[in-house]
Amino acid sequence: MRIEIICTGDEVLTGKIVNTNFSYMSQKLEDVGLSVHWGTTVGDDRESLLQAFQLAAQRADAVIVNGGLGPTVDDLSQEIAAQAAGVELVLNEEWLVTMEDFFTKRSRIMPANNRKQAMLPSTAEVIDNPIGTACGFAMDIGRARFFFTPGVPRELRRMLEQQVIPRLLARSGSPVTIHLKRFHSYGLGESHVDSLLTGVEELVPDGSVKLGFRAHYPQLETKLVVRGADADDVQRKLRPVQAEVRKRLGNFIMAEDDQTLEGVVLAGLTELRATLALVETFTSGQIAGRIGHLPGAEHVLRRGVVVRDRAELHQALGLRDVMLTGELTQDATEAVARAARTHASATHALAVLIDLDEGADRIDLGGTIWIAIATEQETVFRRSRILGGRDWVRLGAVELGLDCLRRYLQGLPVVERIDFEKT
Amino acid sequence: MRIEIICTGDEVLTGKIVNTNFSYMSQKLEDVGLSVHWGTTVGDDRESLLQAFQLAAQRADAVIVNGGLGPTVDDLSQEIAAQAAGVELVLNEEWLVTMEDFFTKRSRIMPANNRKQAMLPSTAEVIDNPIGTACGFAMDIGRARFFFTPGVPRELRRMLEQQVIPRLLARSGSPVTIHLKRFHSYGLGESHVDSLLTGVEELVPDGSVKLGFRAHYPQLETKLVVRGADADDVQRKLRPVQAEVRKRLGNFIMAEDDQTLEGVVLAGLTELRATLALVETFTSGQIAGRIGHLPGAEHVLRRGVVVRDRAELHQALGLRDVMLTGELTQDATEAVARAARTHASATHALAVLIDLDEGADRIDLGGTIWIAIATEQETVFRRSRILGGRDWVRLGAVELGLDCLRRYLQGLPVVERIDFEKT
Repeated sequence: MRIEIICTGDEVLTGKIVNTNFSYMSQKLEDVGLSVHWGTTVGDDRESLLQAFQLAAQRADAVIVNGGLGPTVDDLSQEIAAQAAGVELVLNEEWLVTMEDFFTKRSRIMPANNRKQAMLPSTAEVIDNPIGTACGFAMDIGRARFFFTPGVPRELRRMLEQQVIPRLLARSGSPVTIHLKRFHSYGLGESHVDSLLTGVEELVPDGSVKLGFRAHYPQLETKLVVRGADADDVQRKLRPVQAEVRKRLGNFIMAEDDQTLEGVVLAGLTELRATLALVETFTSGQIAGRIGHLPGAEHVLRRGVVVRDRAELHQALGLRDVMLTGELTQDATEAVARAARTHASATHALAVLIDLDEGADRIDLGGTIWIAIATEQETVFRRSRILGGRDWVRLGAVELGLDCLRRYLQGLPVVERIDFEKT
Repeated sequence: MRIEIICTGDEVLTGKIVNTNFSYMSQKLEDVGLSVHWGTTVGDDRESLLQAFQLAAQRADAVIVNGGLGPTVDDLSQEIAAQAAGVELVLNEEWLVTMEDFFTKRSRIMPANNRKQAMLPSTAEVIDNPIGTACGFAMDIGRARFFFTPGVPRELRRMLEQQVIPRLLARSGSPVTIHLKRFHSYGLGESHVDSLLTGVEELVPDGSVKLGFRAHYPQLETKLVVRGADADDVQRKLRPVQAEVRKRLGNFIMAEDDQTLEGVVLAGLTELRATLALVETFTSGQIAGRIGHLPGAEHVLRRGVVVRDRAELHQALGLRDVMLTGELTQDATEAVARAARTHASATHALAVLIDLDEGADRIDLGGTIWIAIATEQETVFRRSRILGGRDWVRLGAVELGLDCLRRYLQGLPVVERIDFEKT
């Protein structure tokens, strides 16, 4: 099935906003085994919209149009859809009532211009939007089935996932259940993971499991798209493959599906009824900032300390008899973590200290990252060297620090070589 | 002049990467008074590329193609460009030498497959890429001039700004100098700023100044695009308009052009040879994280303290005789800032404390933000209430805290009502 996406709106065309709706839609379709063949972006302009609809109507089997369903004069999608299909716009009484209810529930009166949102092409099938006034709809134009969706991201997401994708799958002639399984790892590059996972797809010989990746430094997402007759069939196919992925990527998998690294760390600490003290230098609060705002962190994050001159730690942590100037040492790093723990009366402390190379920022500028985790019983240590400029070092240090803590909490080795370090 | 952009590559089409190159290019063209009429996204697929080139060649005056200039087999731009124009691919000896030099300088030998990057359509005009091996080029296809650019963002940016835009401006028949002036503000919404600036464009009666906005909460960017015969003419036109914008937006302008709020704060502190102590709660390090990693911050950021339970501040700051439980007070907030300053031996302290509403996250969940700035001489205070859910409150508090410090350093009132607060 050939699918096209048409994104509409001056804000997207002029680059005033980055078109994340496109990548979101395209990705979601890939995740269920469909693929987008062509993308078009046009402004709020009658001639361009008509031309875009007509071209897609000749080429595609299905077209998703995003945006242009609002109440203002520059929202033109319904009007041009009717024109392209050669049908009339008619008032959809049902949607009008839905909108009036929407406003009543919010103790407001519906403005007159919202009425325009209930004017739909006469051949349109309404697609419900339970969280907004933009009415989604589907209709045939030329040889293609068009799906019109709102530009507001959260309205789009709900409509795409709950209504458009099931309709596309039904049309694609493959009456299957599709499931997406995701693994988030840190420390292995995409090509390395790709080679580690060679052959996992073939564990299900009928080709119904597809492996894919999405890299966003420093994390890598490994995806398995599984097709089956029903949910049980999908689980049966997924089971051996996901077991194999977990086995091969092992300690490097830090989260699965909707989990995040910081969420896993927070959950691990919460489960132990533990409390956390953090010490940061060049990462300057960005480790604390990943955890501290999460719901539940108020019971866990006891204290974070940020300094740019390590000598400040003497006074900040009541730390004596430790050499913090010059090149760091394992002993000094461990002493910092221990002092942070006792000073904040926390059960766990994580110290991430960085010796950044001298000089202006450049692609081969590096940093040495000194990490210690202290508990009442023990202190563990990890050192790493990352190259790639100030931002790269900082991003890597934030992730490495959090991941060391995740490994510690899960009883995994804190020291394990990663692809991004130079040692 | 009708301009189109064609973005190529499976990674962009499948949503594996968000297409920031498109919004970047479109925005840059807007900034010099050009506008993009149509955007197309296609994969690394011969048929789609040829069709996209042919359609644009019929419709547009100028086309920017992004991506597909690499050394691998799925990089097809040169090949399909030659096919669309009906010309041959020929080896460009000059670019081959340039590439060999590129590798030699990096002590590497050029891999054989890079030779493909020097195969250009016979009618191509080479566009230099001083920082990569992808050779840019321009050529006519149909009625349009096509500009082929690399997909790597930093290579694209340099080529677009230094080479493609000047060529487009020359072709657009307006031999003018174009200048973009930007103001960054915090605290006023887009429609409010728009109404405050009514008529500023007309200060230059010939229509050569154009006003625009770009909102990215919590900041708003106000842009003036000025066209003139030369740099002097541009400055002459810009002067009265920018003076008027500065006057009308006044204290709300926190930075101009490439400046950032955190950079302005750091520069202000550096100029005073001042040092800074920070105290954060729900923002949990995100204020420190904006400043602390900047070059020069190592001389300024003395210490940041993050807690989620305010009672922790007693011990963290050696703070006695102040009530920190229950609803906050101005006195307690000011005492925290003073204690943070003396505890870190800093000249300035900024405390941003937040009482977040109880309950699950929701669109009307709010937070009361208590801000104090302490120096040796005085303590100033600001309270604000922001609604909009956990993330909105957190983002607003980070910006408000930094902006209060900016105002204090610039001798402006720290307390001035903003559009985003509910009081």
